Amino acid sequence: MTYPTALGASSLKTITLLGQDLAEDVMGTVGFGELAFWLATQRRPTPGETRVFEAVLAALADHGFTPTAIVTRLTYLSAPDSVQGALAAGLLGGGSRFLGVTEDCGRFLHDVLSGVDGGLPTDDEGWDELALAAVRAQREQGRFVPGLGHHVHKEGDPRTPRLFAIAAEEGLRGPHLALFAAIGRVHPRVLGKTLPLNGAGTCGAALADLGLPVELLRGFALLARAAGLLGQIAEERRRPIGMDAYLAIDRNAVYVDPSEE
Amino acid sequence: MTYPTALGASSLKTITLLGQDLAEDVMGTVGFGELAFWLATQRRPTPGETRVFEAVLAALADHGFTPTAIVTRLTYLSAPDSVQGALAAGLLGGGSRFLGVTEDCGRFLHDVLSGVDGGLPTDDEGWDELALAAVRAQREQGRFVPGLGHHVHKEGDPRTPRLFAIAAEEGLRGPHLALFAAIGRVHPRVLGKTLPLNGAGTCGAALADLGLPVELLRGFALLARAAGLLGQIAEERRRPIGMDAYLAIDRNAVYVDPSEE
Amino acid sequence: MTYPTALGASSLKTITLLGQDLAEDVMGTVGFGELAFWLATQRRPTPGETRVFEAVLAALADHGFTPTAIVTRLTYLSAPDSVQGALAAGLLGGGSRFLGVTEDCGRFLHDVLSGVDGGLPTDDEGWDELALAAVRAQREQGRFVPGLGHHVHKEGDPRTPRLFAIAAEEGLRGPHLALFAAIGRVHPRVLGKTLPLNGAGTCGAALADLGLPVELLRGFALLARAAGLLGQIAEERRRPIGMDAYLAIDRNAVYVDPSEE
Amino acid sequence: MTYPTALGASSLKTITLLGQDLAEDVMGTVGFGELAFWLATQRRPTPGETRVFEAVLAALADHGFTPTAIVTRLTYLSAPDSVQGALAAGLLGGGSRFLGVTEDCGRFLHDVLSGVDGGLPTDDEGWDELALAAVRAQREQGRFVPGLGHHVHKEGDPRTPRLFAIAAEEGLRGPHLALFAAIGRVHPRVLGKTLPLNGAGTCGAALADLGLPVELLRGFALLARAAGLLGQIAEERRRPIGMDAYLAIDRNAVYVDPSEE
Repeated sequence: MTYPTALGASSLKTITLLGQDLAEDVMGTVGFGELAFWLATQRRPTPGETRVFEAVLAALADHGFTPTAIVTRLTYLSAPDSVQGALAAGLLGGGSRFLGVTEDCGRFLHDVLSGVDGGLPTDDEGWDELALAAVRAQREQGRFVPGLGHHVHKEGDPRTPRLFAIAAEEGLRGPHLALFAAIGRVHPRVLGKTLPLNGAGTCGAALADLGLPVELLRGFALLARAAGLLGQIAEERRRPIGMDAYLAIDRNAVYVDPSEE
Repeated sequence: MTYPTALGASSLKTITLLGQDLAEDVMGTVGFGELAFWLATQRRPTPGETRVFEAVLAALADHGFTPTAIVTRLTYLSAPDSVQGALAAGLLGGGSRFLGVTEDCGRFLHDVLSGVDGGLPTDDEGWDELALAAVRAQREQGRFVPGLGHHVHKEGDPRTPRLFAIAAEEGLRGPHLALFAAIGRVHPRVLGKTLPLNGAGTCGAALADLGLPVELLRGFALLARAAGLLGQIAEERRRPIGMDAYLAIDRNAVYVDPSEE
Repeated sequence: MTYPTALGASSLKTITLLGQDLAEDVMGTVGFGELAFWLATQRRPTPGETRVFEAVLAALADHGFTPTAIVTRLTYLSAPDSVQGALAAGLLGGGSRFLGVTEDCGRFLHDVLSGVDGGLPTDDEGWDELALAAVRAQREQGRFVPGLGHHVHKEGDPRTPRLFAIAAEEGLRGPHLALFAAIGRVHPRVLGKTLPLNGAGTCGAALADLGLPVELLRGFALLARAAGLLGQIAEERRRPIGMDAYLAIDRNAVYVDPSEE
Repeated sequence: MTYPTALGASSLKTITLLGQDLAEDVMGTVGFGELAFWLATQRRPTPGETRVFEAVLAALADHGFTPTAIVTRLTYLSAPDSVQGALAAGLLGGGSRFLGVTEDCGRFLHDVLSGVDGGLPTDDEGWDELALAAVRAQREQGRFVPGLGHHVHKEGDPRTPRLFAIAAEEGLRGPHLALFAAIGRVHPRVLGKTLPLNGAGTCGAALADLGLPVELLRGFALLARAAGLLGQIAEERRRPIGMDAYLAIDRNAVYVDPSEE
């Protein structure tokens, strides 16, 4: 039995990573975002792709006291001997609800595009038509359109226009972003109200336009969040809130008789 | 009860991260390694610090089929519905044995330097003297010197000279690297054999010279590994080995009577 | 803000759990399986329910070198300082593929039963008819029937008849087990081959007949596995295989050029 | 390469666990606490041992809104698709601070007993002398005595006398419990104040007296907690508090300028 891999390999004098000499050709030369992209695709990104990719990672790294951040802080409070446990616990909250929009949106756009017979639209009118059909189909199946709406940024998520702009600057505004923009234009006609395109969804569209596998988009959100959670642990060390947060919950517990339900 | 933080915060129209406007001043401008450093220290690194930091992350990202990589692949095999679980499981192997050298070495050097009365050495002779005392003290307490030796790179870890060189190029060869280099020179006098300075240990010294908190050095190794594990998941999707690895173990199980012990 | 709970609560002199005095009425009186059932349902099980429940936990606790067991051993090898990490990593493999059959089968049976208009069947003929319709519907949608087939026990899983017998002894053979038994009788007519009812699926049927919430059936499989994984860690301490398993994979790695794909 | 194990093994017609026929001799016969003990020690416990063991598990299963419970609830809120992630995240808080007392106390007592030359004490006077020396030695090294004190049960933890009584009833009050009781009597002479023997510490002493490996005592606390966390998930489904707890923290966040530190 043998196990093939194109990732890391070591011999007496060299370490190879992705077919490169790690020490000579990667260290000091390849940035961390660039490397993460390369590891996931086994293809070195262009500087433009790296810039879009890192903009997405920045957009997703931290949003204050989200459930994942609180979980990491409370786990670090309980088990300060295990930084890996605190980090892992926080990442485990990266599931379908809070960190899942990026992947859900990327997949949704990907599925719509994959279902197009013939060529993709070439003008806004064509994109709007495709978007309209897609939004209608979701609605008919009683499903949400991923990437629409935000509980705080009700008048527009500031990450959205910025990410569209960066992708355009780098010539990387592809069909996923085009379709997502069209959804932004047409959805009020179907839903009867105007919702902002949220940042997490835009990130999913941008990552899909970079050619990253849609089944792994959640993974990139997790990588971004890993950096954010490390920041949370560092801040918990210097300005702790974990104990207060725990006690605020524990001291407001109200005992309910199990039989009263 | 209030909870202070200098990390992420959102209002209707803006998102702030580390006191910056996320959309305008971070996205598209700040690289991912730079951002991770900034999140952990709440201080923006210089380009030179970023380069050393990213070189360390590259050095630690992936080493092929390590236990952490195998764990991530087997967990993905078992629970492909949960990328976050596969990533978290792999990171949980980042403990004292396999991924701990970086932190152990950084802490050790830090403790030796903290114990110096008066000024630090100013020449190689002075560093050698300090290193000699430190190695002797470890040995007398029956402890290993962290960062010495490598099971594959017995004649030298290629990452070590490269990282020293990058740190020197950026003017960031500080006391931790100086002491570690001196340990490389003097330890044969105490241990009676010559061991290479390994890459993981050098990473710990370099991170400590960047002023990163020594209690969190393991956290940076975990961040680097998160990128590597994402690469492992991506490769498991395109060129799977998890099932074969599992079966190779399961089919070679030998049943032992519990009472025979 | 207050947070209601009927689980544990403490005051100066007493600890209450599920409305009971923990020290006086639970410790020394309530077995661990019984307590786990009670915690999950907030209803004390009868001795018969406890016996069926514990039989299911025994059936699912350990199956040798499964991916979850290997993951726990490799994580313990890497991070022996963190038993919680080794246990958590193993549990993270309890997802859709390897440990998911119990829940999938319980849910499937539950959904079929929920869709029955009027009363449930009262004889084997009636159950067979319902089972036949259910198997046909799955097949038409291109889906597997959960709980059918086993890669080792091709002629029958020894846990299956035993669990049916225990449930019958305790008067707890309800509609989920009845429907599952009928599926065992009729599926060859639809699938054209005879597959055994596997133990994991039977466990799901039995748990559903105990009235446990079908959305949490995977949770009970995980609890059972937690005991098994603790056994794996204990055995890894006395008779280690983790290092050998890791090296068997690492040493048989074959490097592939990433560009050759 | 072969991999020995005395745990689970499967062949075409049988499943063996711990040398027993799983279906015939374990399912329906062996309780879950008994099985967990057996798996960890590869020795079947007596009914008395099982009773003490299960009393310990009951004592440690749940204490309301502890950090581990909150973590599990918040993770389930974020990622309801992954029960295994919510459970694993909670267990990761089972580290040195909140769930570690059981193991710390068991180890401490074990180390004191291992250091006794000649026979162990045979009367209270002898135990008091040994306890006095042990408490003094800890104090001189600036260390806490594990198992002393409780932030809620300041006048006595109700689990403590109950567990001593159960162990005595079963003839299983061994040297660890004897030493711990003596520590309860003598520590005021050294520490100048009287602290209660807490329940978690007593659990550690009782588990050590059962002959369970002291390096794994934390593992049993984790197993108990796994049942409790499953109860937390079940209650979160029927009476959710996760969203409120998250918002209570998020809405009370106060933004601090990173440069102001």
